[in-house]
Amino acid sequence: MSSERIILGIDPGTTIMGYGLIHQQGNKIQLITMGILKLGKYNDHALKLKKIFERTLGLIEEYHPDELAIEAPFYGKNVQSMLKLGRAQGVAMAAGLFKELPIFEYSPKKIKQSITGNGNASKEQVAGMLANLVQFDKEPAFLDATDGLAAAVCHYFQGDLTQTKKGYSSWKNFLKDNPDRKL
Amino acid sequence: MSSERIILGIDPGTTIMGYGLIHQQGNKIQLITMGILKLGKYNDHALKLKKIFERTLGLIEEYHPDELAIEAPFYGKNVQSMLKLGRAQGVAMAAGLFKELPIFEYSPKKIKQSITGNGNASKEQVAGMLANLVQFDKEPAFLDATDGLAAAVCHYFQGDLTQTKKGYSSWKNFLKDNPDRKL
Repeated sequence: MSSERIILGIDPGTTIMGYGLIHQQGNKIQLITMGILKLGKYNDHALKLKKIFERTLGLIEEYHPDELAIEAPFYGKNVQSMLKLGRAQGVAMAAGLFKELPIFEYSPKKIKQSITGNGNASKEQVAGMLANLVQFDKEPAFLDATDGLAAAVCHYFQGDLTQTKKGYSSWKNFLKDNPDRKL
Repeated sequence: MSSERIILGIDPGTTIMGYGLIHQQGNKIQLITMGILKLGKYNDHALKLKKIFERTLGLIEEYHPDELAIEAPFYGKNVQSMLKLGRAQGVAMAAGLFKELPIFEYSPKKIKQSITGNGNASKEQVAGMLANLVQFDKEPAFLDATDGLAAAVCHYFQGDLTQTKKGYSSWKNFLKDNPDRKL
């Protein structure tokens, strides 16, 4: 496992985007920052996408993360909502791709499983475990931000995947070795 | 209608991305370039997204289009394919958003209708009409590129929408006045 890295975790949705940044040193993790971007107030879908892209790019430029972890549901109610969700994921990923960050995706179930040991844990249970792992303000306002943070912590728990991955060209092999990985 | 503008049309898919650039001067349009990006050879979905983002950004940086038109199917076979398509659209849109281009989306039916007068026209019929409007090499290899070009030409036929739109903030009003517009 690499001795030090910064992980940006993002949960890109079309109503709220949650994000969290952690700093790993050896087997210790520390919270750098976490927050949310409220998108419900924008009626225009393109404007939401623009905001997601800009915030993700801004976080990368400000905190220089080494890796990007994304919470990515792979099932949804209908094709319309999946198209919108795919776009939200796409613009967040584009910011990471633009900055040449390795991107890792995790399903909500995998994230809950990694953090609480239970793939069906509630948001509050996940937040409670995260609060034990890294210090953060447990105000309800921050509950949505924990989804982004959870993706980052889940990625930390997977170990250093960049050592097996070595960039996009060998992702195929990486996938073969890591069937859990969704991208 | 603005007297002069460059329109970039894109059809972002997960197997092939087609693109076309046209230069409008008054009521004349001229082909600048058209082409395809073959994505089928990449097994990795993230790498496909990276290629779509990079090519779109590269086209914007090289040709400085004023507006971006995207062919965007809104229905698909299943939620999985729509998620992937949404991501492909998302990264292409991110390149436009990053460069602050106004983005316009058109359904495949709307594009066919605009160009041939028939929303159910074949790809060959659309290509034939496009060849009458702008000169291009009608080799079969370019047939996929005509989807991107078709989006650009369809957008040209709508007139100057930026005059009614005036940026993202009033897209809501714009949508109200233009129920056909899909974003």
